[in-house]
Amino acid sequence: MIYLDNAATTHKKPLKTIFSVLKALTIYNANPSRGSHTLSIKTSLKIEECRENIKNFVNAPTTASVVYTYNCTEAINYAIQGTLNYGDHVIITTFEHNAVLRTLANLKQKNIDYSVVKPNTNGEITVKDIQKLQKNNTKMIIINQTSNVIGKTTDIYKIGKYCKENNILLLTDCAQSAGHKKINMTKNNINFVALAGHKGLYGTQGIGALIINNASPSPIKFGGSGSNSKSESMPDYYPDKLEAGTINVVGILALDAGIRFVQKKQEKINKKIDKLSKILIDYLKEEKNYILYSQYDCCGVVSFNHRKIETAHIVDELNKYNICVRGGLHCAPLAHSYIGTIDTGTVRVSISYFNNKYEIKKLIKVLNKINNKNR
Amino acid sequence: MIYLDNAATTHKKPLKTIFSVLKALTIYNANPSRGSHTLSIKTSLKIEECRENIKNFVNAPTTASVVYTYNCTEAINYAIQGTLNYGDHVIITTFEHNAVLRTLANLKQKNIDYSVVKPNTNGEITVKDIQKLQKNNTKMIIINQTSNVIGKTTDIYKIGKYCKENNILLLTDCAQSAGHKKINMTKNNINFVALAGHKGLYGTQGIGALIINNASPSPIKFGGSGSNSKSESMPDYYPDKLEAGTINVVGILALDAGIRFVQKKQEKINKKIDKLSKILIDYLKEEKNYILYSQYDCCGVVSFNHRKIETAHIVDELNKYNICVRGGLHCAPLAHSYIGTIDTGTVRVSISYFNNKYEIKKLIKVLNKINNKNR
Repeated sequence: MIYLDNAATTHKKPLKTIFSVLKALTIYNANPSRGSHTLSIKTSLKIEECRENIKNFVNAPTTASVVYTYNCTEAINYAIQGTLNYGDHVIITTFEHNAVLRTLANLKQKNIDYSVVKPNTNGEITVKDIQKLQKNNTKMIIINQTSNVIGKTTDIYKIGKYCKENNILLLTDCAQSAGHKKINMTKNNINFVALAGHKGLYGTQGIGALIINNASPSPIKFGGSGSNSKSESMPDYYPDKLEAGTINVVGILALDAGIRFVQKKQEKINKKIDKLSKILIDYLKEEKNYILYSQYDCCGVVSFNHRKIETAHIVDELNKYNICVRGGLHCAPLAHSYIGTIDTGTVRVSISYFNNKYEIKKLIKVLNKINNKNR
Repeated sequence: MIYLDNAATTHKKPLKTIFSVLKALTIYNANPSRGSHTLSIKTSLKIEECRENIKNFVNAPTTASVVYTYNCTEAINYAIQGTLNYGDHVIITTFEHNAVLRTLANLKQKNIDYSVVKPNTNGEITVKDIQKLQKNNTKMIIINQTSNVIGKTTDIYKIGKYCKENNILLLTDCAQSAGHKKINMTKNNINFVALAGHKGLYGTQGIGALIINNASPSPIKFGGSGSNSKSESMPDYYPDKLEAGTINVVGILALDAGIRFVQKKQEKINKKIDKLSKILIDYLKEEKNYILYSQYDCCGVVSFNHRKIETAHIVDELNKYNICVRGGLHCAPLAHSYIGTIDTGTVRVSISYFNNKYEIKKLIKVLNKINNKNR
């Protein structure tokens, strides 16, 4: 099987991720922060060590600002729902995922409105265009660092500077960028980073993180925190304030291992993924029947369609050759409208460090076959 | 190490749980319901097979009524926050966990109030006492099936009947009971069952479930569902409506394996845990310096204190002998008030199927030593 749906979940995991899961299931198999016995403390210390690692990975101010979540969607919900109040205005980009769009749509009942900044003619999200949408009540700007539809990365630095100057909170959805692009909260004045564990960070599903910098989101879920048990409220400090109920030690250790893998190999990962993406992009550019939506430096996300063949048919044909890619809408409808594929979706090939050029060449061979059959 | 904190997280897992995790990490390592390629479909089918298993385990009406959650706390939040509206009244028991108490406390801002039904002189939660608290606007009754503080189980049948007759929704928190006590949603007219994966069901942390019967909770988190991508709202059907973002396939397969383990061995599990609990309870009853809060049939949860020695000191002393138990408040402050331990907490020993009588005898030996030193 050739698995090329890594933007959904990276299929192959580093051995260290798998070993960490086994460790979590056998050595660190207790509840952290909920007991004073050796194993609970040992597990707590491990969990804090992982927090420290995530803190360093995104250059966050403190370890306490790292909140473990179920997935990136939950992290985004925490940042948005926990921060916005009645009457606030938000600016988002064309590339935002349904985790942002649906959360904001639900907040319309609280009179919270949003505007969408579109890419300029160069395909860039610019401060100039953001500025045009800014209102007196703009409280938050949400930027998808790398689009899960076309792999386009937005430069955060200038936007972060603008947010700081204008006292606007900045949330960056790093679901797709993490593991590919640098995330620097402090340098870029980012208030919220949302991470997914199971994509480019080579961890497992069931774990994500929200990292907080100069912001104080309220909880949206409530429960035991292992602290202040007598109190009717969640503790007033992070991360406890947002971590209701038992956290996912298995997922946390896997995410930690995945991040360490990425940290160690970042250069190699980028080089390999860029090289493999380039082979595919160059083929799709060459073959005029294919419409390409991605460019080089796409974090392994290559979206395309065929002028004469339906998206779903291509995906099915590839699947017959045991090549797994994703077709349709990728949970980001505005991005599809922007590239003109809201009705068709795209074929999305997404490449991980564990793919190789033979797999990409096989893919191209089959794409060529499909094309020749339908020329 | 003798691990006796299984009511927090069962330490030792069945081999099948561990193998299932490995399978999830290597064979079913894709996004379910988010692609049409073989691996995504294979993963989706596996996920639905697990849903079916959970459905049967609690005798729920349909597979679609099984919603995967991050943990039991999230399941409880979904049921409570997703269902209650401005001005509703709720009846809960003395035994409720902070997952219930803190969630309800936060809803006071929506003018949602709750009353607490206390056990009668026999220590039972009765319909008669519930009835006294019922108001015109009582919308939900929340029952902890088995207390995580003293292991007391409440018989749900009559309460369920009463709820049905009075058109009141019934939520049962089965975090502690699942894997020990039968859960029968249909027979007992339960509208919501909340499950934790990492306790008596011998799965991992990071997974729980909310099973729904004749109720329609609204979502509290929003995001991609792999379905209706163009829509601004979560899909209007379950489980998709409540499953925002990528679900935890690793946790789901582990939970499934754990439930199968329990189903196969339920009788043996109960017999063993009851036997081991009895040995400890009989010792604590005999030794008058210890105050016992649990009774036989306690699902392995044995809480106690010493008349002259602080709770924390006992836990620390046991820990010196490599015996892991939990001391303090167990996230259920009303239960502690009820047994008179709100200031001290209790020493809680919690037993799993993987403990044995030598471990319990070693525990008793050390408890005896502690007692003799402080007589």
